[in-house]
Amino acid sequence: MTNKISDGVNCIFCKIVSGEIPSHKVYEDKDFFAFLDIHPQSPGHTQVIPKNHVRWVWDVPNVGEYFEVVRKIAKAQQKSFETDWILSKIIGDEVPHAHIWIFPNDNVKGNKNDFPANAEKISSAL
Amino acid sequence: MTNKISDGVNCIFCKIVSGEIPSHKVYEDKDFFAFLDIHPQSPGHTQVIPKNHVRWVWDVPNVGEYFEVVRKIAKAQQKSFETDWILSKIIGDEVPHAHIWIFPNDNVKGNKNDFPANAEKISSAL
Repeated sequence: MTNKISDGVNCIFCKIVSGEIPSHKVYEDKDFFAFLDIHPQSPGHTQVIPKNHVRWVWDVPNVGEYFEVVRKIAKAQQKSFETDWILSKIIGDEVPHAHIWIFPNDNVKGNKNDFPANAEKISSAL
Repeated sequence: MTNKISDGVNCIFCKIVSGEIPSHKVYEDKDFFAFLDIHPQSPGHTQVIPKNHVRWVWDVPNVGEYFEVVRKIAKAQQKSFETDWILSKIIGDEVPHAHIWIFPNDNVKGNKNDFPANAEKISSAL
């Protein structure tokens, strides 16, 4: 994977990666970026995306590393929301940039719309 | 990951891995097993599981390899069902043995209940 940040024209997720659109960041490394979903299913609902503009999750070249990052966030969600039960969905049609949803089962405590607190909870448990 | 096949007592997925319960197998290697879901969302809906009895996907030690296998099957589904759009879900409550669903978007052609044909289509595209 190159270090090129984005070649998606008018791609909302590319703009989130570049900072042009603000987000509640949870995690970042050279290839991947994770931020809170603005329509959360449950507290801490996170989107994990490749920084490069790739349409489908299955076309991300280092898919194993991608899921190591997802696992890292899942483990932080387990810890910070005190649950073993972390769900994930790969749907694909909402935004045409590869993304993986990861979120605690909805019986966890917390306000799903308190984005700053939820981002801080997860990132401090990483 | 050890080569131990199963330590899940009365676990339906462990019994599928051992062959005690028959399944429409799509893929198998030393650590992972993939078979068609008997309640498919779409033609070729596959479950990918670790052979060892692990409760949660995020506790599978070689999670990167796990998703390399999922990607391999996604690519075979793309080819055999002629779609780029392959979805995946990790829910976790149906059976207490780690499992990842992977299936084509439901606009693909084919009969989702023709298990032998769908298993053959995917496995021959691997």
